Amino acid sequence: MRNILVIGWGQSSSSLITYLLKKSFSENLHITVADVSLELAKSKVNNHENGTARTLNILNEAERKEAIKNADIVISMLPAHLHINVAKDCLEFGKNMVTASYISNEMNALHEEAVKKNLIFMNEIGLDPGVDHMSAMQIIDRIREKGGKMLLFESFTGGLVAPESDDNLWNYKFTWNPRNVVLAGQGGAAKFLQEGTYKYIPYHKLFRRTEILNIDGYGKFEGYANRDSLKYKSVYGLDDILTLYRGTIRRVGFSRAWNVFIQLGMTDDSYTIENSEHMTYREFTNSFLAYNPFDSVELKLRYYLKIDQDDIVWDKLVELDIFSSTKIVGLKNATPAQILEKILRDSWTLKENDKDMIVMQHLFGYELNGKKEQIESSMVCIGDNQTYTSMAKTVGLPVAIATLKILNGEIKTPGVQMPILKEVYEPILKELEENGIVFHEKIVPYLGYNPERVTG
Amino acid sequence: MRNILVIGWGQSSSSLITYLLKKSFSENLHITVADVSLELAKSKVNNHENGTARTLNILNEAERKEAIKNADIVISMLPAHLHINVAKDCLEFGKNMVTASYISNEMNALHEEAVKKNLIFMNEIGLDPGVDHMSAMQIIDRIREKGGKMLLFESFTGGLVAPESDDNLWNYKFTWNPRNVVLAGQGGAAKFLQEGTYKYIPYHKLFRRTEILNIDGYGKFEGYANRDSLKYKSVYGLDDILTLYRGTIRRVGFSRAWNVFIQLGMTDDSYTIENSEHMTYREFTNSFLAYNPFDSVELKLRYYLKIDQDDIVWDKLVELDIFSSTKIVGLKNATPAQILEKILRDSWTLKENDKDMIVMQHLFGYELNGKKEQIESSMVCIGDNQTYTSMAKTVGLPVAIATLKILNGEIKTPGVQMPILKEVYEPILKELEENGIVFHEKIVPYLGYNPERVTG
Repeated sequence: MRNILVIGWGQSSSSLITYLLKKSFSENLHITVADVSLELAKSKVNNHENGTARTLNILNEAERKEAIKNADIVISMLPAHLHINVAKDCLEFGKNMVTASYISNEMNALHEEAVKKNLIFMNEIGLDPGVDHMSAMQIIDRIREKGGKMLLFESFTGGLVAPESDDNLWNYKFTWNPRNVVLAGQGGAAKFLQEGTYKYIPYHKLFRRTEILNIDGYGKFEGYANRDSLKYKSVYGLDDILTLYRGTIRRVGFSRAWNVFIQLGMTDDSYTIENSEHMTYREFTNSFLAYNPFDSVELKLRYYLKIDQDDIVWDKLVELDIFSSTKIVGLKNATPAQILEKILRDSWTLKENDKDMIVMQHLFGYELNGKKEQIESSMVCIGDNQTYTSMAKTVGLPVAIATLKILNGEIKTPGVQMPILKEVYEPILKELEENGIVFHEKIVPYLGYNPERVTG
Repeated sequence: MRNILVIGWGQSSSSLITYLLKKSFSENLHITVADVSLELAKSKVNNHENGTARTLNILNEAERKEAIKNADIVISMLPAHLHINVAKDCLEFGKNMVTASYISNEMNALHEEAVKKNLIFMNEIGLDPGVDHMSAMQIIDRIREKGGKMLLFESFTGGLVAPESDDNLWNYKFTWNPRNVVLAGQGGAAKFLQEGTYKYIPYHKLFRRTEILNIDGYGKFEGYANRDSLKYKSVYGLDDILTLYRGTIRRVGFSRAWNVFIQLGMTDDSYTIENSEHMTYREFTNSFLAYNPFDSVELKLRYYLKIDQDDIVWDKLVELDIFSSTKIVGLKNATPAQILEKILRDSWTLKENDKDMIVMQHLFGYELNGKKEQIESSMVCIGDNQTYTSMAKTVGLPVAIATLKILNGEIKTPGVQMPILKEVYEPILKELEENGIVFHEKIVPYLGYNPERVTG
């Protein structure tokens, strides 16, 4: 029996644990699911004969070390800042480790020691980061192997509501941490490259500078720029690339309406609103509008943000009840962002039978044998239900598959890693396909942003 | 001979030092002007028989203590964060002290010890803070003494170019630290009170929510909200006030045009622009616009921000040369804000014979004997030249006058103080008037924002 320790947090580990338990017979595995909540851990193991549920307080050193010592490999699904303690114990006891989080500087500092001890600390192997790395690097490597030169790389990912459960005007529901959705784009200008020109978008314009994308069978989407597009230059070896853009996917029209909240100042998380607990949604909205007792909150907002009476944006706002004079915020000393999150949760929480949907699309522009071409690669994954969501599948399955392949010695390169090596992405993408996470590719003419080579 | 030590920084101390040197004969004073630059100190003393210029490295403890020990009172015109060392030495050697800066928490912590030693540490006695405190408290106290109840307090201050030197489309030149002008309004939402309703304006809307003011003989101005209006509630004893608003004055139309820079993202100081050193002003502007090689930078900007072809905002932008393809930024690893400051300095630097202008206006709404009224109190001060600027006069004279009155025992209340007591403001405002810094009052009908008491 080989022992896999899953240190949990719950949310995204259902698909992960189910996959490992299913493989436990043929692969001779025992899965220990450790969580602060024994109940949650038990619900994941579901009395499986090759599984054990236990509590684990990750901040209790003795408890943590004992658990890690007895494992053959450790999966940490903890919040990102808690991985480092697990990683250090893994170094001490000579265990491999897998996480779905971005590599922190602290984690990166363990690279040489991990290499020395021939240990694999595989990170960024969830959805985004994770599936995006693997599916992009597979095509980039293929283009390069043929002698092609990369000109353009654009990559978009979004967590949305599935078409069959899409029943609001925003075509959106919360399928992941709502707070992150409210704060998305804050903390600095978005930076990217277009045809060799660096471009910068401040937060308050971010949702007005979207790009449109099409996904066969699913229609039109839009993407707004992520903050960090440029860092993928070195990670993917794209140092001479002309266009580099990473974005977040929403349904068309979401961003234009979301921009209303940004313009009003409702997404601000840096100060608290006076008397937030007892204020109505209407009063909250009014606190961002000029004082005028003769005009309605509605007309003041329309005028301020120049929203025409027949603009669908207006219906989206009304749908959220932001003008309600009966609904009460009920949060003490809350920031605008916290209040907005509360208001949105009323409308955007998945209903019991709702399904979520993950959408990813990459564009690869390149020159090969004197010819410019573009590959469009798209993936859509729809959740089965609210346990096996598309988010749980696309985050948890790559983690689980990688864990097993490390355990079986199929993934070998030691050190603090992310899944950009062929040794890693080829077998994992293949098995993801068998599990319904499939990328569809097509070749289209290369357009880029400047087909006629005008400068400017 | 009574020794006054002025620890300097130069810029605003010309009027201060000239005032004290003039008084030195009748008041039996010796003024020591200490600066890191001996040359600068000498230029201020100008070989006056009752003055001495010296160098002083404020971070050299022995040097600093020796200088303070030999003084009877110390004026610190250092950058705000450096006052605290001077204050601690003043406590040690039993010296009074005067600064024009906001009271820091560190400074405030010295209050009890200062009281115990019967020392006066007078702060916030420049223009803003300073003249604003005194001129506001004089009228607020008078209204209260008559039994009136304060309903509204609005206060606006601005440093501008004098009408006779006003020769650009923005009606603005830099008369103080340009960097502060570029960053103005950043760091959090503006908060204020209107008719009992708290209002919040995010930075990217701040310059679109201005208030108009009139100053007799000088015409129309506009004010945009400062971040910190609410803190004056307790300082001025206005706890039940319905309307509380502090703002910064510009000429009408400035803010609407300035908003273009904010919308583009040019005032951002949080990241550096790639290749900033070698880029043209035009390339800088273009880096905030969507990529499109077929359209001009001009048309892209007009379209993005919806600027009509006959809008004066456009002429203001053109006047600053932001579309120039010959002017080079020339700053290494510069932030957008640093580059914008550079561009503005080209156009907004005072010419040799230019004069500056300080404008201040307070509005006091109150109920007295069942009647609502409003007092409008305005002050305009125009600089003599580039040495005795209106900024130097309005900052330096209150400091100098306060110093002498403390030295002469006319101002007596010990502790860490700001000029809100009658003992302080009455004699100083009187002497400011003799020096041409005069407030003109008029009584107007009270309007407030809600004359008909509608709620909403």
